[in-house]
Amino acid sequence: MAMVCLSDFEAYAKKYLPKLAWDYFAAGADDCKTRDENITAYKRIHFRPRMLRDVSVMDIRTKILGTEISFPVGIAPTGFHQLAWPDGEKSTARAAKAMNACYIASTYSTCTLEEISMAAPGGLRWFQLYIHRNRAVSQQLVQRAEALGFQALVLTADLPYTGKRRNDIRNGFRLPPHMKLKNLERDFEVCKMSLIDPSVTWNDIYWLQSLTHLPIIIKGILTKEDAELAVRHGVQGIIVSNHGGRQLDEGPATIDALAEVVEAVGGRVEVYLDGGIRKGSDVLKALALGAKCVFIGRPALWGLAYKGEEGLQDVLRILQDEFRLSMALAGCASVSEIGRHLVQFSRL
Amino acid sequence: MAMVCLSDFEAYAKKYLPKLAWDYFAAGADDCKTRDENITAYKRIHFRPRMLRDVSVMDIRTKILGTEISFPVGIAPTGFHQLAWPDGEKSTARAAKAMNACYIASTYSTCTLEEISMAAPGGLRWFQLYIHRNRAVSQQLVQRAEALGFQALVLTADLPYTGKRRNDIRNGFRLPPHMKLKNLERDFEVCKMSLIDPSVTWNDIYWLQSLTHLPIIIKGILTKEDAELAVRHGVQGIIVSNHGGRQLDEGPATIDALAEVVEAVGGRVEVYLDGGIRKGSDVLKALALGAKCVFIGRPALWGLAYKGEEGLQDVLRILQDEFRLSMALAGCASVSEIGRHLVQFSRL
Amino acid sequence: MAMVCLSDFEAYAKKYLPKLAWDYFAAGADDCKTRDENITAYKRIHFRPRMLRDVSVMDIRTKILGTEISFPVGIAPTGFHQLAWPDGEKSTARAAKAMNACYIASTYSTCTLEEISMAAPGGLRWFQLYIHRNRAVSQQLVQRAEALGFQALVLTADLPYTGKRRNDIRNGFRLPPHMKLKNLERDFEVCKMSLIDPSVTWNDIYWLQSLTHLPIIIKGILTKEDAELAVRHGVQGIIVSNHGGRQLDEGPATIDALAEVVEAVGGRVEVYLDGGIRKGSDVLKALALGAKCVFIGRPALWGLAYKGEEGLQDVLRILQDEFRLSMALAGCASVSEIGRHLVQFSRL
Amino acid sequence: MAMVCLSDFEAYAKKYLPKLAWDYFAAGADDCKTRDENITAYKRIHFRPRMLRDVSVMDIRTKILGTEISFPVGIAPTGFHQLAWPDGEKSTARAAKAMNACYIASTYSTCTLEEISMAAPGGLRWFQLYIHRNRAVSQQLVQRAEALGFQALVLTADLPYTGKRRNDIRNGFRLPPHMKLKNLERDFEVCKMSLIDPSVTWNDIYWLQSLTHLPIIIKGILTKEDAELAVRHGVQGIIVSNHGGRQLDEGPATIDALAEVVEAVGGRVEVYLDGGIRKGSDVLKALALGAKCVFIGRPALWGLAYKGEEGLQDVLRILQDEFRLSMALAGCASVSEIGRHLVQFSRL
Repeated sequence: MAMVCLSDFEAYAKKYLPKLAWDYFAAGADDCKTRDENITAYKRIHFRPRMLRDVSVMDIRTKILGTEISFPVGIAPTGFHQLAWPDGEKSTARAAKAMNACYIASTYSTCTLEEISMAAPGGLRWFQLYIHRNRAVSQQLVQRAEALGFQALVLTADLPYTGKRRNDIRNGFRLPPHMKLKNLERDFEVCKMSLIDPSVTWNDIYWLQSLTHLPIIIKGILTKEDAELAVRHGVQGIIVSNHGGRQLDEGPATIDALAEVVEAVGGRVEVYLDGGIRKGSDVLKALALGAKCVFIGRPALWGLAYKGEEGLQDVLRILQDEFRLSMALAGCASVSEIGRHLVQFSRL
Repeated sequence: MAMVCLSDFEAYAKKYLPKLAWDYFAAGADDCKTRDENITAYKRIHFRPRMLRDVSVMDIRTKILGTEISFPVGIAPTGFHQLAWPDGEKSTARAAKAMNACYIASTYSTCTLEEISMAAPGGLRWFQLYIHRNRAVSQQLVQRAEALGFQALVLTADLPYTGKRRNDIRNGFRLPPHMKLKNLERDFEVCKMSLIDPSVTWNDIYWLQSLTHLPIIIKGILTKEDAELAVRHGVQGIIVSNHGGRQLDEGPATIDALAEVVEAVGGRVEVYLDGGIRKGSDVLKALALGAKCVFIGRPALWGLAYKGEEGLQDVLRILQDEFRLSMALAGCASVSEIGRHLVQFSRL
Repeated sequence: MAMVCLSDFEAYAKKYLPKLAWDYFAAGADDCKTRDENITAYKRIHFRPRMLRDVSVMDIRTKILGTEISFPVGIAPTGFHQLAWPDGEKSTARAAKAMNACYIASTYSTCTLEEISMAAPGGLRWFQLYIHRNRAVSQQLVQRAEALGFQALVLTADLPYTGKRRNDIRNGFRLPPHMKLKNLERDFEVCKMSLIDPSVTWNDIYWLQSLTHLPIIIKGILTKEDAELAVRHGVQGIIVSNHGGRQLDEGPATIDALAEVVEAVGGRVEVYLDGGIRKGSDVLKALALGAKCVFIGRPALWGLAYKGEEGLQDVLRILQDEFRLSMALAGCASVSEIGRHLVQFSRL
Repeated sequence: MAMVCLSDFEAYAKKYLPKLAWDYFAAGADDCKTRDENITAYKRIHFRPRMLRDVSVMDIRTKILGTEISFPVGIAPTGFHQLAWPDGEKSTARAAKAMNACYIASTYSTCTLEEISMAAPGGLRWFQLYIHRNRAVSQQLVQRAEALGFQALVLTADLPYTGKRRNDIRNGFRLPPHMKLKNLERDFEVCKMSLIDPSVTWNDIYWLQSLTHLPIIIKGILTKEDAELAVRHGVQGIIVSNHGGRQLDEGPATIDALAEVVEAVGGRVEVYLDGGIRKGSDVLKALALGAKCVFIGRPALWGLAYKGEEGLQDVLRILQDEFRLSMALAGCASVSEIGRHLVQFSRL
């Protein structure tokens, strides 16, 4: 079977992953409307492609927080990579480094931060965290991440409680006994996630800033009001995200929320996006609407499920090729030429 | 089979109820467009969720007509509960009381008002009535209800004649011989409902007020014009309802009509809604658009069909948990924080 | 099988009519988009029903061109009724008279005008005509119709050539040998219809007026411009029609074109509609948007196919009952209470 | 099997062509959204047909660049006609001449320009070209075409690189060994198309003008900005095209982009369209929105696949008959009567 586009990897993963793992990765909250909207919303955005521009030399590199990446796609934080591939997040780290992509490692990794760092020394990595009821847990994670060379912290804001994912409940989902949430002190039941503090507010960002010199990026913002608050509280970046549709069902698709957030931010900090990226032209649309970079969640897991780090590199390479081709066909030779003029929302 | 969400109860009821009963409960008028629109209209409303609010202590209680209920969901009036469960409305009353929910008992109950009262003493109950051609019938029902401690009257305004429900006609629907409309003086053929007076007008509300000290709530309002008339005629509440899509097909979905009614009423009386509530986030949307409380019809019957009062409690508990979670994920710690800012109608 | 709604008759006709006949009656032009849009357009129109009006005495009668009919539904002109029932148009005439409905007899009847008249003396009938290349043919038909007591002429304007109906071409449709277009002088191949004059213009209405004292109604108008021309040329009525979607595909649904025509006409002449009427609430919507009466085409043929004049009466009676019920549930006790306020076009 | 409409030819071709060839002709880029939108966009455009105009004498001829054609439909440039029919482009040329239609021969023909010319001397032909990395290749092609009597050059602007057509990749598509791209000097792998110069800009049009006296038409324009640039650079015509949805996926349907281009051009040059034409009324819509002529791609190939030049004539004849009938039913007796008033974009 030729792996031509990302849905080939999805089909592979659906066929070969254990049902428990597939269901966990595929899960959306409630009716899964937001999960699916993340994808279909792209179909309502049309390009306005420009012709006869010199696209013989394509430059698809960009920078995030000052660091150059090979193209504007990184790896979103997702948990439990060992469910997809035995080496888990170590493979993810290696693939990301090989492709010069940014990898946001999840708190809920099945490898330690140290293992991730050692697997791919020098790779560009950010660390995703929650604020735990026991603040010492968060503090220790932040300081380990900083010490290990992670270059930013990504605070997830949309999970005061875990969303209701019906299939996980039906399956009685929990990690297989040989996998551990190694970054947390003891075993841990995912469906409860009772360690996370639902009392967190914007002021806790100041506390986080007091722990670290790392830039702080907030993930899970969907409105202009929260975007404004984020900037005012001194974050260095915003990831427009609805947690892959796994938290509050029937919120906006991220690509639909992006323009509102970008406008509110007005260039004061970088804005990123995750959710629904399935082909290179989706990346182009997100950049046209103001994202500096996008992150892929499930497609990275499909790549891992296919062939570990090699499979993930395949996924990234396909996205890269498709993104470059979309840019060229839309008349852009470099990322700096991408702008709002390139897209319009269709009447339908 | 795990009962995870309300559609699990629906599937159970469809599988195990006699076809005659299932068809009767499921029926919509004509092409069932309004019945189905009641549900799909929610899909066109998106949340604008807010992040990093302290949602560690959730308060989902509210008050209707001054009485506290555990969360803003009650039991809408539906007929013939014995078709779903042998104990019929007695089980409904017990479940509602156990959950501290308001139960609107239907005139077309298969238990007497007295049986309902005795089944769950002290529960919050309202009584739904029609105005009968023989006004003495209505008067007697009102006075019995008041004497038994029902706390409000709910006048159904949208049934001068019964809607055309094709399957009921095909099935020749009538109550099984061992069930009776015990609150009416004699056996009674449902499909005719010839007892109801189609000449009723707004002035009859004055007559009703003359019979009772109970507050009067009018059910079946879908326009601002009628909302204004209702307030002017001194009702204490309005239920935005299209009778579950069983009366005039191709009227508006209740969630679409709600905003118009709420705006016309301007806070002068409480506004409620029934129709299409299938998950906790539907409740949140209705409250965001101005409803004080919503009522469930068919889902209550599915709960009864599953396990009587225990099944109905399961349904209410699921809705409660989902509502609480939706609120938290949208950034609201108490019902008072829910408002119009929380939702927007999507372009599609 | 209970005949509960018009689609039951459709299913019957599809099952029992010869394929050639079913295909001919069902045919739409090209992709059949307009044929189908005639029906689906009604789904985008919502009622704004009003409550607590006295609907105990329902009056659904109306008048067209001054003549009272039992309710605002008549029989549109369609050809070849013997394809549906052996007695053909004679049965149609009897059913229409029995229901006090207006029957527009088609030039392409398989019975003579004389047979139709004698089958149901005194019934309200209009005569549909084309202007033929040989004007003597049209003149003779007009004068026969007038002499036989037909009360109006309906000039079809949308068939300078016959639309392309793919199935009729595939089937090689032609009338069975034992059926004749008895009102025309010689046998006649339908798919050519070469007798009709494609050079007809508005001025030919003056010629038609010179032949007869009967009022002239023009059928096939879909724009305000043509509506204005029709009024200026002295017609007494306009039927908004797209020939059941059998002529130009991808024109507007008639219910969508109605409002434009009604507004242009401004009450100077009566406006009617055909196309897509499948239940009583469709009639109510058409009247709310300004139609004085509607006409049914295919449903009348299904009724004939079911049981001849008895079947057609069943169809009319169901529509009548549904129309009366819709009116009552929308809060209208008489046709004069129906108005534009009763409907709104939905966002979707 | 009767060939009644163009989809009959599509079904035939799908059934009888080798999968490799069918897939190549059917291919769209990525998810094929634009390929399919080219067709569905027509469904959102409604006619406003006018009645009672004299349509007894129909004149469907028009002129493109001053040359009369039998009706406003020509043959768009597509490659590899021998994949559809052994005689390849020679058959295409004969059919086009027989129908007095304009045939735009592709650079990627499997016959030489000389063979095409000799197959149908005197036919109206334009030559489609790319600008090659080796400009001498392009120059030689232009000069051969001019010498052979081709009457215009059509520069394709939307293929700096080939779009990603998944099935062609899966199939490992390449021309069968016995077919050659005879107009290029050596064999050539289609999926690379590495001969085309992606550095081409608007200034290269001046270079092209310096080589030839032929009018230059630019193909692949979708925005008003590029339309303005095209006019300023002295082209004589614009083909609104998205390469049949084979290049950038999720750009606009051509019929949706047409109005924008026509308005920007303001009559200074002729505007044509290809993409999605499947029936005569599509042609009428395109002309109503300002196209001077449309071109068919895949339908021409289906015609070839059916019966070579005879099959392509069948396709053109059906389109011609449908176009003439649509015009008549919309009230237009000649192409000059077609205008913007004839169509409206539907709400849906």
